[in-house]
Amino acid sequence: MQLPGNYAHGGDVYAPSPTGSWLDFSANINPLGLAPAVKQAVLEHLDGVVHYPDPHMRDLKKALAQHYEVPEDNLIAGNGVSELLYLFFQVVRPHRVLIPVPSFSDYERAARAAHCVVQHFGLRPEQGFKPDCRQLQQVAGITDCLILGNPNNPTGTLLTQNELLPVLETLQAGRSWLLVDESFLDFCEQRADATLRQLVQAYPYLVVLQSLTKFYAIPGLRLGFAVASRELVQRLEGAKDDWNVNSLAQAAGVAAVAQKAYAEASRRLVHEEAVWLTERLSGLRGMQVLPGVANFLLLDLRAAALTSTELTARLRARGVLVRDCANYPGLDNHYVRIAVRTHAENEQLIKHLEAIWA
Amino acid sequence: MQLPGNYAHGGDVYAPSPTGSWLDFSANINPLGLAPAVKQAVLEHLDGVVHYPDPHMRDLKKALAQHYEVPEDNLIAGNGVSELLYLFFQVVRPHRVLIPVPSFSDYERAARAAHCVVQHFGLRPEQGFKPDCRQLQQVAGITDCLILGNPNNPTGTLLTQNELLPVLETLQAGRSWLLVDESFLDFCEQRADATLRQLVQAYPYLVVLQSLTKFYAIPGLRLGFAVASRELVQRLEGAKDDWNVNSLAQAAGVAAVAQKAYAEASRRLVHEEAVWLTERLSGLRGMQVLPGVANFLLLDLRAAALTSTELTARLRARGVLVRDCANYPGLDNHYVRIAVRTHAENEQLIKHLEAIWA
Repeated sequence: MQLPGNYAHGGDVYAPSPTGSWLDFSANINPLGLAPAVKQAVLEHLDGVVHYPDPHMRDLKKALAQHYEVPEDNLIAGNGVSELLYLFFQVVRPHRVLIPVPSFSDYERAARAAHCVVQHFGLRPEQGFKPDCRQLQQVAGITDCLILGNPNNPTGTLLTQNELLPVLETLQAGRSWLLVDESFLDFCEQRADATLRQLVQAYPYLVVLQSLTKFYAIPGLRLGFAVASRELVQRLEGAKDDWNVNSLAQAAGVAAVAQKAYAEASRRLVHEEAVWLTERLSGLRGMQVLPGVANFLLLDLRAAALTSTELTARLRARGVLVRDCANYPGLDNHYVRIAVRTHAENEQLIKHLEAIWA
Repeated sequence: MQLPGNYAHGGDVYAPSPTGSWLDFSANINPLGLAPAVKQAVLEHLDGVVHYPDPHMRDLKKALAQHYEVPEDNLIAGNGVSELLYLFFQVVRPHRVLIPVPSFSDYERAARAAHCVVQHFGLRPEQGFKPDCRQLQQVAGITDCLILGNPNNPTGTLLTQNELLPVLETLQAGRSWLLVDESFLDFCEQRADATLRQLVQAYPYLVVLQSLTKFYAIPGLRLGFAVASRELVQRLEGAKDDWNVNSLAQAAGVAAVAQKAYAEASRRLVHEEAVWLTERLSGLRGMQVLPGVANFLLLDLRAAALTSTELTARLRARGVLVRDCANYPGLDNHYVRIAVRTHAENEQLIKHLEAIWA
């Protein structure tokens, strides 16, 4: 069997591990894992898989609309956010797509799959890779679609509504699209100041993507949604099949957004552990930790003795998966991304790194 | 919330039932239900949903390739066959698509979503809606893509390899596509004489679709695959995201194809019950049962006192869902499709029908 050559995401937990199992810092999943109520909801719906999923996704859409405070008519659910990303480009087919890089590789892959012309906008390491919104506003005039992660993966930078609004205005004036991927926003304390999802009724060229798989630790189930104008939602609905979100993901989503204590505990844990990890990692010679607001940290190894590829291989030999960022446009072989995990796991990572650094 | 207006499949088991629950004859799902080993596999993989699904789908592809006797490189797995249907049209974008009707409504919907020009080829009730392959061969020259269900839904007709080969040859000679949907073929005793999936290496314009949700009773999990040339498989892989098949569906698929006794028992039950149902239904005045080879029967009510829409409403009021075929191109309001269920369920259906007919 030939493995698809284009897979270029985090580590592969299904490959054999030298230690018997993997310590996975390569996937940015909530370290608290599956909430018990979410697991319970899946179990309760297991016998129901003999029926087709609800094509109208009534319970799911109602729960998402309430929790994320958007009208149901502005919401379309997907088999993960990735499905909706590919669907958007297939349906809308903007000619030129501008992507500030580094960013999530599927933005470019999805755009290219729909034969869009992809242009990069290079983010600068000396600014911590944070986009300069005045510059973005200037280049917004020369594209048909701008796609941004907010917070951005793998850099962890966050833009506020105030920073993004002039960019959105410029794009809207030129009938150009703004896709904002808020898939990691649930991890951020500042999420109310950053989300654009309440603006889709005022800005018909705005699309907000939101994954549930990262924050609720259900990547294996697949679940995400997009918020957009009613008109675009209807176009997207018409271009996909009716059963794209499986029954168990629908049930999990309903249960997930009701877990208020889990959500608060997740944010607290991730914040505390990110602070702890940053402090410990900064003690390693030549390693710089970029300040990030999400559940992952970008490590800058430019002043270190190891390249990202070497470090990834050394950790892999110890049963630890991290994300070598060498294949990100806009980065090179001096950047590694790690997820923020539980304290015990983070301590193990630090132990391995200290051994490698020794 | 506005329900998508395009949903036009079987009955909606998620709507409230007058009797508290539905007796569902509208969805064509294996009456034996979930095999215990499949349920067990899902349970065993439940904690694994905190990881992304295996993007290479190693275990699943291996199992499917062995069971269906096709090389792994010629196989692409999907979030149900429907996903692959939409993907094919988005990627290949044939100009003209010819659909013998009546057939599964998503063939047309998926083709139109990719802006194909859809042409119907009317199947004739006096031939039991069975396609005349000599006629198909003639019209094959004037299309870019022919799509056939084999067995066909909702008519239950089956074409053999020998009947299909001249059609395939003609299409291939004109560089036109043949999509054959074999999603119900696992229910048929004659499946070895009918499948075209072993021909994809010799015929690069051939695509065979195969659902696992119907025969293995897992529509809620979503799982299907396509068999095609390596080149097309690679094009399709490149146009979708890497995690389109959720972890539980992958695990269920591996377990499902190993259930040999379940498969044999399913075919036996469906065959016996189809014979029994046909006999009993034929006793109702004005009802004719079309001879079908799959796990559903098309009822012809042209000589009956009730239209399909009236009958569907009367059954619905009794908590029984059937498929009113009035919205199928090529049919009218004199056709109803019913699934073949367990004997106890089939007896209930007959009891309700006899009461309506009395």
